[in-house]
Amino acid sequence: MILYYNKTERATVRRHRERGTNERETIDAILDEGFVGHLAFAADGQPFAIPMLYARGDGELYLHGSPLSRLIRCVAFGIPVCFTVTLIDGIVFARSAFHHSINYRSAVILGTGRTIDDREEKHEALRLIVEHVARGRSDEVRGPSDGELKATEVLALTISEASAKVRTGPPADAAKDFALPIWAGELPLAVQPGEPIPNDRCEVDVPASVEQWRRVYA
Amino acid sequence: MILYYNKTERATVRRHRERGTNERETIDAILDEGFVGHLAFAADGQPFAIPMLYARGDGELYLHGSPLSRLIRCVAFGIPVCFTVTLIDGIVFARSAFHHSINYRSAVILGTGRTIDDREEKHEALRLIVEHVARGRSDEVRGPSDGELKATEVLALTISEASAKVRTGPPADAAKDFALPIWAGELPLAVQPGEPIPNDRCEVDVPASVEQWRRVYA
Repeated sequence: MILYYNKTERATVRRHRERGTNERETIDAILDEGFVGHLAFAADGQPFAIPMLYARGDGELYLHGSPLSRLIRCVAFGIPVCFTVTLIDGIVFARSAFHHSINYRSAVILGTGRTIDDREEKHEALRLIVEHVARGRSDEVRGPSDGELKATEVLALTISEASAKVRTGPPADAAKDFALPIWAGELPLAVQPGEPIPNDRCEVDVPASVEQWRRVYA
Repeated sequence: MILYYNKTERATVRRHRERGTNERETIDAILDEGFVGHLAFAADGQPFAIPMLYARGDGELYLHGSPLSRLIRCVAFGIPVCFTVTLIDGIVFARSAFHHSINYRSAVILGTGRTIDDREEKHEALRLIVEHVARGRSDEVRGPSDGELKATEVLALTISEASAKVRTGPPADAAKDFALPIWAGELPLAVQPGEPIPNDRCEVDVPASVEQWRRVYA
């Protein structure tokens, strides 16, 4: 059985409809592979898009920040927001300038946030954010103190009205351009980790969460 | 002489002020290294953040899309928008869950767009977008026909009210946590190209724009 998020009119991809979907599996996979999204909200009539870490829980996205931040206060107030996660898979080189493109997968979640006030729920959401950025890390570190929990606002955004847009594959040159002596194809791109840089006064071995860091686990 | 973009109240970083700047050189460098940004705009009271390619021209950002797209029509109409480019430089692993962070550089441009109707100006903006995604590519390809130019709307957004936020360096653990036997440090991340995948019926060599593709040129 294929499960779908709500395909409302505003959560429907209209340009290149064939690239759009509201399928839950596709959207969840994008949210799980990314770890930085952009939150769009408007304040005083001006929209903003601000990068944020996040985690995906059971049907919800978790965001966090300072209780003093304008963004956090606006979202906590319940204004409409949009959270977008975009993965860049490659550059599409066509024979014509016009048909150049990007292979990408993006997920767009619309809704309103709520603050998480319950101590245990908040603790778990923060643990999920650490786990989402680096799997296994939450078991390696010192967890948050009461003061640290108080200094962090945690927001939940229900994943309900959601869509994805996905482009894959080769360039779409016009038939007549195939004869041109111009290279065409794809250049795959991926986020790769470099060598870990230990902090001063750190004499323990590099742990699994760092050494085996990746975005997609088997 | 250090040049700055307009540091209006709403283009001022307020959380972690020490990470904020309106310095032109910093902002331009972020825009030049990135190639996909997120455009925030509101339609019927709902904000959206949509990924878009772009290029930086002389004091302007160029965006493009179908004249039929809602996003493009909204921006062409002159509604307030925000364009954000975020580069992820690494994950910051702290001894405490609380001090985990991301090293990143983001640039936020506020303003209103205008359509580029002049044929030569439009042609040049589109050339810059191709060049921005893959340097040297515009000389290798078939340029746009009149029909292709008509099927593309090009928008310009003045880079005036703009700010950047940058985090670099090691984790900021509390002094008392340094004694904990927990690894802390940074895991650098970078976008890396893989092996080019030639399109069907493409028998020419991989060109310089693909073979030497990178985000920062000397």
